[in-house]
Amino acid sequence: MPSQEHMKRVLQSYVDGFNAGDAAAVATLFADDAVIEDPVGTPAIKGREAIDEFYANAVSAGSRLTLDAPIRGSHGDRAAMAFTVEVTGLRIRVIDAMTFDGQGRIARMEAFWGPDDIER
Amino acid sequence: MPSQEHMKRVLQSYVDGFNAGDAAAVATLFADDAVIEDPVGTPAIKGREAIDEFYANAVSAGSRLTLDAPIRGSHGDRAAMAFTVEVTGLRIRVIDAMTFDGQGRIARMEAFWGPDDIER
Repeated sequence: MPSQEHMKRVLQSYVDGFNAGDAAAVATLFADDAVIEDPVGTPAIKGREAIDEFYANAVSAGSRLTLDAPIRGSHGDRAAMAFTVEVTGLRIRVIDAMTFDGQGRIARMEAFWGPDDIER
Repeated sequence: MPSQEHMKRVLQSYVDGFNAGDAAAVATLFADDAVIEDPVGTPAIKGREAIDEFYANAVSAGSRLTLDAPIRGSHGDRAAMAFTVEVTGLRIRVIDAMTFDGQGRIARMEAFWGPDDIER
């Protein structure tokens, strides 16, 4: 099971990768067979190719992420963080919950944000 | 499916119930067959009796909850919030992710906090 320190470092790298405009740095945090549900309640994105494309698009949009509070761990293989995304004049309030695999990569990501969590 | 407004109101009621010292007000937000994993990575608590007991203990400890950021919804039946618990001289940083049933009650709660998320 990944350590708390490892999981928090990966979540911080996710934020830092976005802010550096480095889509590959973000996508590489995910397992090849990872599943992404962003936002929760929409069809999942699955697998390396779809994940690489998803983050290429998301990062190239110029999104800036700011943590709202310290990253949370758990007593298991999951961690979560609350952050705000600024992109194209919008602010989106998000909570991401991540589940890790045995190799310390993100196996599942769920992004909590709804229509009401966007400020125009 | 519950509305975004309903889910956010329930999560706010969860916070308010704790701060009012009203365990019953918190427990009644949950379905009779709800499952609670608090913290994530520990055995789940299941069903009305266990849930009532869990919140009777948690609320009687005098926990005070403060939201760290606005409650997040989703595009489905889930919502999440980041908050800080102050209890017996400790501060615990938590993210709760809730899944709702068709009747608008919480069917599943997952509380993200690890050993490193406690400040003494």
